Amino acid sequence: MTFPIPTAILGASGYTGAELLRLLHAHPAFHIVALTGDSQAGKPIEAVYPHLRTRRLPALVKHTEVDFSSIQLVFCCLPHGTTQEIIAGLPGHVRIVDLSADFRLLDVAAYEQWYGHAHRAPALQKEAVYGLSEHYRAQIKTARLVANPGCYPTCSLLPLIPLIEEKAIAHDRIVINALSGISGAGRSAKQEMLFTELDGGVAAYGLGHHRHMAEIEQELQKAVSGAQQSPAGDRAEPIKISFTPHLVPMTRGMLATISMRLAKGVTVEDARATLAARYAGEPFVQVLATGSASTHQVRGTNQCFLSAHAGRLPDELILVSVIDNLVKGASGQALHNANLMFGLPETTHLELTAVFP
Amino acid sequence: MTFPIPTAILGASGYTGAELLRLLHAHPAFHIVALTGDSQAGKPIEAVYPHLRTRRLPALVKHTEVDFSSIQLVFCCLPHGTTQEIIAGLPGHVRIVDLSADFRLLDVAAYEQWYGHAHRAPALQKEAVYGLSEHYRAQIKTARLVANPGCYPTCSLLPLIPLIEEKAIAHDRIVINALSGISGAGRSAKQEMLFTELDGGVAAYGLGHHRHMAEIEQELQKAVSGAQQSPAGDRAEPIKISFTPHLVPMTRGMLATISMRLAKGVTVEDARATLAARYAGEPFVQVLATGSASTHQVRGTNQCFLSAHAGRLPDELILVSVIDNLVKGASGQALHNANLMFGLPETTHLELTAVFP
Amino acid sequence: MTFPIPTAILGASGYTGAELLRLLHAHPAFHIVALTGDSQAGKPIEAVYPHLRTRRLPALVKHTEVDFSSIQLVFCCLPHGTTQEIIAGLPGHVRIVDLSADFRLLDVAAYEQWYGHAHRAPALQKEAVYGLSEHYRAQIKTARLVANPGCYPTCSLLPLIPLIEEKAIAHDRIVINALSGISGAGRSAKQEMLFTELDGGVAAYGLGHHRHMAEIEQELQKAVSGAQQSPAGDRAEPIKISFTPHLVPMTRGMLATISMRLAKGVTVEDARATLAARYAGEPFVQVLATGSASTHQVRGTNQCFLSAHAGRLPDELILVSVIDNLVKGASGQALHNANLMFGLPETTHLELTAVFP
Amino acid sequence: MTFPIPTAILGASGYTGAELLRLLHAHPAFHIVALTGDSQAGKPIEAVYPHLRTRRLPALVKHTEVDFSSIQLVFCCLPHGTTQEIIAGLPGHVRIVDLSADFRLLDVAAYEQWYGHAHRAPALQKEAVYGLSEHYRAQIKTARLVANPGCYPTCSLLPLIPLIEEKAIAHDRIVINALSGISGAGRSAKQEMLFTELDGGVAAYGLGHHRHMAEIEQELQKAVSGAQQSPAGDRAEPIKISFTPHLVPMTRGMLATISMRLAKGVTVEDARATLAARYAGEPFVQVLATGSASTHQVRGTNQCFLSAHAGRLPDELILVSVIDNLVKGASGQALHNANLMFGLPETTHLELTAVFP
Repeated sequence: MTFPIPTAILGASGYTGAELLRLLHAHPAFHIVALTGDSQAGKPIEAVYPHLRTRRLPALVKHTEVDFSSIQLVFCCLPHGTTQEIIAGLPGHVRIVDLSADFRLLDVAAYEQWYGHAHRAPALQKEAVYGLSEHYRAQIKTARLVANPGCYPTCSLLPLIPLIEEKAIAHDRIVINALSGISGAGRSAKQEMLFTELDGGVAAYGLGHHRHMAEIEQELQKAVSGAQQSPAGDRAEPIKISFTPHLVPMTRGMLATISMRLAKGVTVEDARATLAARYAGEPFVQVLATGSASTHQVRGTNQCFLSAHAGRLPDELILVSVIDNLVKGASGQALHNANLMFGLPETTHLELTAVFP
Repeated sequence: MTFPIPTAILGASGYTGAELLRLLHAHPAFHIVALTGDSQAGKPIEAVYPHLRTRRLPALVKHTEVDFSSIQLVFCCLPHGTTQEIIAGLPGHVRIVDLSADFRLLDVAAYEQWYGHAHRAPALQKEAVYGLSEHYRAQIKTARLVANPGCYPTCSLLPLIPLIEEKAIAHDRIVINALSGISGAGRSAKQEMLFTELDGGVAAYGLGHHRHMAEIEQELQKAVSGAQQSPAGDRAEPIKISFTPHLVPMTRGMLATISMRLAKGVTVEDARATLAARYAGEPFVQVLATGSASTHQVRGTNQCFLSAHAGRLPDELILVSVIDNLVKGASGQALHNANLMFGLPETTHLELTAVFP
Repeated sequence: MTFPIPTAILGASGYTGAELLRLLHAHPAFHIVALTGDSQAGKPIEAVYPHLRTRRLPALVKHTEVDFSSIQLVFCCLPHGTTQEIIAGLPGHVRIVDLSADFRLLDVAAYEQWYGHAHRAPALQKEAVYGLSEHYRAQIKTARLVANPGCYPTCSLLPLIPLIEEKAIAHDRIVINALSGISGAGRSAKQEMLFTELDGGVAAYGLGHHRHMAEIEQELQKAVSGAQQSPAGDRAEPIKISFTPHLVPMTRGMLATISMRLAKGVTVEDARATLAARYAGEPFVQVLATGSASTHQVRGTNQCFLSAHAGRLPDELILVSVIDNLVKGASGQALHNANLMFGLPETTHLELTAVFP
Repeated sequence: MTFPIPTAILGASGYTGAELLRLLHAHPAFHIVALTGDSQAGKPIEAVYPHLRTRRLPALVKHTEVDFSSIQLVFCCLPHGTTQEIIAGLPGHVRIVDLSADFRLLDVAAYEQWYGHAHRAPALQKEAVYGLSEHYRAQIKTARLVANPGCYPTCSLLPLIPLIEEKAIAHDRIVINALSGISGAGRSAKQEMLFTELDGGVAAYGLGHHRHMAEIEQELQKAVSGAQQSPAGDRAEPIKISFTPHLVPMTRGMLATISMRLAKGVTVEDARATLAARYAGEPFVQVLATGSASTHQVRGTNQCFLSAHAGRLPDELILVSVIDNLVKGASGQALHNANLMFGLPETTHLELTAVFP
């Protein structure tokens, strides 16, 4: 590997793009050489993000203006749906971390069902590695295309996967309630995202049909299958989850509260110990011994803080998980994955302290 | 009944007291003649609540300074635990709406278990009527002492009770996630309630042991019993619920998202129809035909907006319920109850329009 | 006058329209018979404002669909610039409170200079009465067309006019800094008004050229002229003010902090006494004896709370004025004016208590 | 200089302490060896600041438990008034950046007047250097004790000093209006700082008598004197300013809007050019060519963004200045000063990108 590594961000004018520019500032290996933003092409970055005026960064250009021959790493922050063809058109030597949902679902039929159109790059879909860093580390290291997980899936899967793999919980009635900061909705001008419409109130949305369900179920299913070492003839019901997201009047942060039953004979302490053991060496997942965390505690960082609690129902386990949706839930995990892909120490430039207060 | 009815507010310097003062302004029947606030005694109300400077109101006095002989109605907004003895000491002709938790639990043993000390007015406990207006209307009308429900119980019970009564849902694994505005925590100076500690983040709290659980379970149990017309020999397990509250960075508002299984053969549409039928004539409960409501839509009002949704789990029903925690969840319901107690049209002075934006 | 008075709101789908619908609910005289909103025509009000679902209101229609022959009062909440022709087209018997800026500037040349196009109804301009209720009461009562003041002018003029009229202050270097809640920017979807762009930060805007300057200066000039009883030959410099507005991350509320010099021999106490005397009988302006007010204290009300303070500069007077920009700064003052126009007690349905917390 | 430099933070449990811990994380030269917090002594830092749980930091101890013999640098974050004696008691080899107000006023009589008690370490007062980094760089480098400026003074002085030094403005009627995030009020539990008391509203405070006035005036007076090279016999009036601070419902950020007259013959462009020239080489002050900045643009950074605008008054100049009150207004400037004191490149570990959104 020769350093620095020429890096491009596609779709740099959105919030995940801005967050990547924050996280990549002075990164020792990744050097930003191109920023695209088709509707903003020609503008300097400070016209789009005045807070970046002190940074030396290339101006925004159209995607078609970029010479990808010298670029080795691409972070793709384009909207869901438009990403497939663009990634399919990149030269083969370019390695990609895609922050959209386009390559997260292994099954193109599932993709079509949830996203409403046939997948436009099914061949690429096959080679994409799901970028949940702590659980796909080996594959990410050698992947050409990493499908960076959604924020809700990251926040939900980190506490659930180890417990499913260890058969510590029943997985027939997992109920996830999640709260998200508004930045998850992106930077497009929409009436329902105005300050005045959101300040001072909360609402649920996507009831019973949010697209992140598919992603969470896919990964939990893999955990179940791994746990069961299921023979080909396995006819177990595919896993389904209850998932209700809510928009909360804050800019950043995500919290998932997850209720389920413990497996027979397993205690809350066992579950906590399972999580603690699984994440003992992980730099970006902390399992709390007591209490639960607020999203303030991870604001601006790549951390996930987890906790396990006894619920009041018989055998009930409640897990609470917090992340910053723009960091661990998007751009921070993307950088973590890029670090892995390029053989860097994986915490490179990600040892952030929360911005509190 | 002779009008106006002389009315006192005990503990008027807290948020529920302030809200009562807002709601009672120009009420045609209830006339405020005394306001107590022991630590603020001697101060005019505008010293405690400058926004009330244009109102003609009595100054705050100590509880012991009030001549209750001419008072007919007391709203009691004192802290949990201190209320029992004070109410026990009121003359028998005074009718009381108590906004504390002190008289909500029928079973003094349960009270002792959840609140950590023996009940100090067990005789009064027996005569107290639980003030969930839509479900105890008849008893409230003749009650001397109404135990006004907590905010979480109000928000949770309104959608659940009719479904349990109609045997439309299974009640073994009801999972309630609730979000509350900060005003529910009161006006005491605590570090964890500072603006800087709460702005821009969310957290769960009281995991597995919040006191409102007891109140919700008690009322659901009554609904179960009523539904089953259970004989004395009934040995059914007492109902338990999963309940996780969260603090959200907004001042007012409460939302409950509740997941459960439908009873065999019952559809989501059936459940919605059950709710719609039950609340068809109710002025303060609206069952939405489509979509779910944000708390903005009920801010400042005595309304509860409910909706029923298909979840993704087999037979899953998800209910979403929103209220203003200080109005329907406290002072508004208290006034509703007082209207009932004194034979007034129950919507008197409560037909409020939400403050939006 | 026959009651009820058939009333229409033009442009009812914006925030001032929504606020009028809140304030007019159950108003004893004004009965809403038509609501227009061209882009939303055909929709019931709850489709545009779900918080109004419990209200019985006509559906939104196009302006051209309204039969104005039976309508006596129109509140016009249309955007600046589009209002002139629509009002010019209303039948002569209709009385109008216009909440736009279109008829506030007496001088059509000034209008053209500040708004960038020739005035389209100059004849009407002449008959319009500036609707600063406390200062134009007599003219408002008989006006056909009231130009309801802007929020910044209302907040700034109420403290300044009496002091200028009484020659208590120098008017050559009045410096107004004003803070506004976001609702003043309206309900249109704009990127810069997204929650994520505004939460957690503040900015100044319109530096040196905000359009409300013209309105403030016009009215201060009138006050100067009145005070001077200036002869036709007066060649005094026209009054100019320094005015800097700021957007603050809150939905409602406006605060103006105004620095100026006292006239020779006038003390801060004199100035306060002048204000107190001028507004002694006014129901919606309170002059504080001590301290200054926060916008919380007037949230949701038609009140203006004023205070006068010694600054540190020689002879400096600082005035602080707070209003709710949507009420006293828009729809509340509009209703106040309509009450005056129709001979009702002017506080009719406007004795609101602040929503606090 | 031997690295690392053993460093202590006194009063580490407040917000400026927390912010220092964020900024010092992985600093190449300053190594934290002691944290004091008398009321929290004995607790690990994560008990006080859970967001710091992933950091390896010493537990909080009492001030008297620290062995200062091996400590070379102290950041003192103690409350105003308690600092003087503690700093006076430190061994002579320790170099100190004091974030309190205790050593900012050169004149102990002025200190006594503004702070209400005689200064307790007048000898130290004389050697203290005012730590406005860009204007006292040379003195800071060799100082033993740096009095770190207040947030309001930093935000106000950076735009004003160069213009006064260059005689570009009149300094007889400078009017400063400033807006601050709530974190400036510290972490003590006070009712008026509760979320519910501050959310959704704004207020002015300290009208005519805020203590930061003295600090601003002192430094402007020095700039005037420097500019005038005033002889001993100079009898010019001491400079006074108008200064009104406001609390805004956001956690971090500060904005000052400053109105003044330009000196004869000076234009707004001249003033902007003067500022641009003065700060051309400065890493932490940016003079905008167009527009003005929001506080979002500097959130979490050590930057000050300045702009100059024509006001509407004759010869009026309006300056707008934004900082993060906890960084450039406190802990960031403190680190900048420490970098200077220890001969490090002054931007060491301070090249932060704003946290936006």
